[in-house]
Formats: sequence, C-alpha cells, structure tokens
Amino acid sequence: MIWADLAKRVLGKDRRALARAISWVEDGREGSLDLLRALYPHTGKAHIVGVTGSPGVGKSTMVDALAASYRAASCTLGIIAVDPTSPLTGGALLGDRIRMNRHGADPGVFIRSLASRGRLGGLSRATGDVIRLMDAFGLDVIIVETVGSGQAEVDIMRYAHTVVVITAPGLGDEVQVLKAGTMEIGDIFVVNKADRDGAEKTVNDIRSLWKGHTQDGWVPPVYAVVAREGQGIQEVYQGILDHRRYLVDGGGLAARVTRGLETQVRDILEETVVDYMLLKAKEDGLLQGLLEEVAGRRLDPHGAAARLCDRYGWRPKEPE
Amino acid sequence: MIWADLAKRVLGKDRRALARAISWVEDGREGSLDLLRALYPHTGKAHIVGVTGSPGVGKSTMVDALAASYRAASCTLGIIAVDPTSPLTGGALLGDRIRMNRHGADPGVFIRSLASRGRLGGLSRATGDVIRLMDAFGLDVIIVETVGSGQAEVDIMRYAHTVVVITAPGLGDEVQVLKAGTMEIGDIFVVNKADRDGAEKTVNDIRSLWKGHTQDGWVPPVYAVVAREGQGIQEVYQGILDHRRYLVDGGGLAARVTRGLETQVRDILEETVVDYMLLKAKEDGLLQGLLEEVAGRRLDPHGAAARLCDRYGWRPKEPE
Repeated sequence: MIWADLAKRVLGKDRRALARAISWVEDGREGSLDLLRALYPHTGKAHIVGVTGSPGVGKSTMVDALAASYRAASCTLGIIAVDPTSPLTGGALLGDRIRMNRHGADPGVFIRSLASRGRLGGLSRATGDVIRLMDAFGLDVIIVETVGSGQAEVDIMRYAHTVVVITAPGLGDEVQVLKAGTMEIGDIFVVNKADRDGAEKTVNDIRSLWKGHTQDGWVPPVYAVVAREGQGIQEVYQGILDHRRYLVDGGGLAARVTRGLETQVRDILEETVVDYMLLKAKEDGLLQGLLEEVAGRRLDPHGAAARLCDRYGWRPKEPE
Repeated sequence: MIWADLAKRVLGKDRRALARAISWVEDGREGSLDLLRALYPHTGKAHIVGVTGSPGVGKSTMVDALAASYRAASCTLGIIAVDPTSPLTGGALLGDRIRMNRHGADPGVFIRSLASRGRLGGLSRATGDVIRLMDAFGLDVIIVETVGSGQAEVDIMRYAHTVVVITAPGLGDEVQVLKAGTMEIGDIFVVNKADRDGAEKTVNDIRSLWKGHTQDGWVPPVYAVVAREGQGIQEVYQGILDHRRYLVDGGGLAARVTRGLETQVRDILEETVVDYMLLKAKEDGLLQGLLEEVAGRRLDPHGAAARLCDRYGWRPKEPE
C-alpha cells in the first residue's frame, strides 16, 4: 500500500488502517513521513489527557475506569500506553495487553502500547506521532499513560492538554513521593488506594504543597479514589472535563498546544539531526575510531562532538 | 579566576576549586569548556558506580552505607545525587542534603546534588561532566545515584562501570517492579528492606528472570539487605569490587568506558546542536512564528524542524 491510500483509509475511519499507520510510523517505514504530513491538517480536535505516576500506584486501573466514563458519554477514545520495556522484562508489556482487554472489543476504543527500542527520545517522538494519527482518525479523547516517573516520562506529558498525576499512600514517605518530579506538571491529582492507611495525609500533603500556587490560574484539585472499586472515578472524570473547559474558556489551550508542538519539533530534531549523525558515523566506521581516541585521552568528548558536526554538515551560522 | 588556574587547583586537590569547577560546568560559564578540556587527560582512573531504583526503595540509605564501606578501605569517594527536582518540590533536595551530612564533614567524601533545570538532556550531560571533574580531582570511586526510575535516569546509568539496581518488597506486584525498566541494566541487584514480607519472593523473582541470561558473561548477584541496619551491606560492597575485578580481568571495562563516552558525545550533540538551534530560534523570534504556523495547520512539525535546520546551518551531506 502507498501512503496516500493509507491516509485516505485512516480518514475514512478504517481501524485496521490506523493500526497499520501506527506501525509504519513506529518502524520509521518509507512513506511514514508523507503519511504524517498528509494527515496533519486533519488533527487538532482531540483532547489529550496525560496520566502519570510511579510504578504500583494503579495507573492502568485508573485509565480503564476513566475509559468507561468516557464511553458512557459516547466519546471515542485512544489509549497510548508508553512502556519503556525491554526483552528481559517483556512480561510487563504482556501484562498491559491482558489488562487492556476490558475495552479491547469495543470499537469506540483504540489501544496501543508503545515500547522503547533504545533511547527514550525516539519513544517521545513516536508518542507525538501516534497522538497525531489517532487525532486525524477522529478519536475524541486520547489518553497517554506513562509507566515510571522519570524526567523523560514527564517530558512526554508535555504533549497533554490535561495532566493527571496519580499517587498512592504507602509508597514511601512524602519526600519520596515528591521526588517523582511530577508534582509541578499536574493539573489534577489522584490519591489512589485511598482505603489504605495514610491516604488522608497524602491528600493533605499535596494540597498544602499547592497552597498559594496555581497551574496557570487553575487550582489543581486532589481526589481520593479507590479505582479498583470505581470509587471517586466520576469526580476525576468531571475534573478533567472542568479543566478542559477552563482551558478553552480561559484561552489557556493555545499555550498547551504550543507546548506540545515545541516538544514534538525538539524530538524530531534530536532524531533527524543527532541520531542521524551518530548513525552515519557508525556506518562510516568513524564513530568507533573517535571513541577510541577519546578513551585514549587523545581527544575529549566535546572535541569528538565537534568533529562529528564538522563531518556531517552542522555549521552554526554567525548572526548575519 | 581564569579556567587555567582553576584547572591547576583542581589537579592540586583543592576541594573548593572542585566545587567551583562543578558550578562553572553546571552553569555553562564561559571557560567551562576549556576547563573540561584541560582536565580531560587526567581522567579515567575512578571506578564509576551507578545506583538506581524506584522512589522509596532506600537508595540514599544504601549509598550512605556503601560510602562507609569505601571509607573503611581508605578509598576517597565522590557522590553525585541526580535529582530531577523543581521549585515546587524543593523539599526533596533539602532532604538529600540533610541526609548527606553523615559524610559531609569527611574530607575523603565529596558530595554534590545535581538538579534538573528543564529537560533531562542537560542533566545527563552535566552528570557526565561532573564525573570527569571528580575523576580528574583524583577521587577513587564515584557513585552516581538517580532518583526515579525513568528511561532518562536509566540512560544516566550508561556512564557507570558497575550498575547497582535497588528494589524493595511491597512496592506493588512483580510486574510493576519490572516495569521500572532497570532490570536489564543491572550488574548487581539489591532487595532492600529485606525484613519485610515478600522479600524472599522478590529475590527469587529477580533470580529467575536472570536464569539463562548473563550481563556480558557476568551473572548478576542478588542480595537481600536491610540498609538502615547495615545488614548485608558488606556483601554488596564486595559484589561491586568483584564486578570491577571481573571487568578489569575479562577486558569488559573498555566496553563500559566506550558506552559512557558515547553517551556523553550524544548528550553534548543534543545540547550544542538541538538546544542551540531552538535557543537561537527563540532569540530571533522565529520559533514562535513557526509554532503558530504549525498550530494553524499551515505547516507540520517535521516541516518546522526542517526549516530550523535550514536556517541554522544543518545540511546533511550526501555520501561522497
């Protein structure tokens, strides 16, 4: 199939075509760039919701429950589970797929796991591309779920219009929870497993952290939830809708959209410039020699970087 | 002070000069590149140990205890705590500093927290630079501790010769623990808080995951530890020494060193090429206009990236 046909089918709401388009983009197949370009004018309608939190807080259960709320309101839904998994830990991915089966048969829900194949830069870029494909396909809401709590996972949240940060009591003391580094990016906070000891304290800790602060004028609500039993889910769902309305009415949506686009442009640059240079240097047999020089202390790392730039065409222009 | 003087003082084992050199490099001050370049030939002697794991597993306590073991053996020690913290979560950093005071007065230990100021790319690059400064200063062992369990934090571990992965029972089910994505990078595994229920199961789970696999021929040991009480620390310390000996005797050290250097060259390229381009585009007022075009769907993100490359001097060369 050529990319123009595939684009037409995606716009025609052909689920198989969407699945194939995502695979093309993930694999970086020839034509995938043309495909993305052709579909781009049809994007910009979906609400992008990011869900993040440390391992074990119950993100998956939460996303499942939110999906049910959206479906009850007849919204179609894309779910992207970003999973920095590895050959050795392949079981994690399998776990996701089994879990996702609850909505697997629902034609209004499209689920995709994105697994890392090395550096997360590529995964972040791929996430942005898959969001765009799902958006062009016409899904109303796209939930991006990142396992882990690292900085790069936080960066992926920059694609979202509304960021939901999930935590749970008993994961360590408060300081540890804050260390996740996700605190300042949240629009909505969820303390899951709220039937456990310490839930109220965790809720209060988050509230006092936000005292006197807002998220661009929005005061992030904090919800106590037991996702496994559906308790408190409706409030979180309503909170997401409220935040969307706040963004649309207050004009904050444009800033969020721009943030996402800047992230995407940066990801693309990292891939097309830096990854390209390193790949070429490997193919040409230049990289190994350079690294040996650096290891032998005859050249320093900045010098090696400069040589690669010089060889592969990067010449910073002086201001004219 | 000019960089040549600072370099001389660092090589003369002046602790204040090392602290200042690190600040220079963190802030990207003028002369910091010359400083790094001058010190580079004096690096390559330290053993770099990475310590990683999810929030709440007790990494800090573990690093403190390992530091005591190294000091008992008269080794000098650098500790770099990589902390993707933020203004809102500044308390986490403070927590670190208080904790670190145990070795704070010991002239044989040099402790530094590195905090993120945006994207982790910069933090990873800074970590590599600080390792080099400490190495040139003459510290025998450098421990790099990353909070969080994300992919970028895992990437920072590529600087290490020996990677210690810490986990603890009760953080969620096994699948959740594996999701941390750190499983395949570990040379040594530590199950901390081993006096809790489920510790033995966690140890066995990790052992069975590694069944039939090795880390470049090395079978990663799994230790049950209660770091707070010092229980099992000596075994972990011995394990790290054993792994170092394995690398040196078996010739695997060169590969680890090359891996670290490649990471550093990549980090430098991302900063000097991609960050440079985006910064210039912001200064020139070009970026905002480009992003508005993209937001208006008159240009797609790949097109925006191409325009930036074109404007700021990146032209991939064709093979000659």
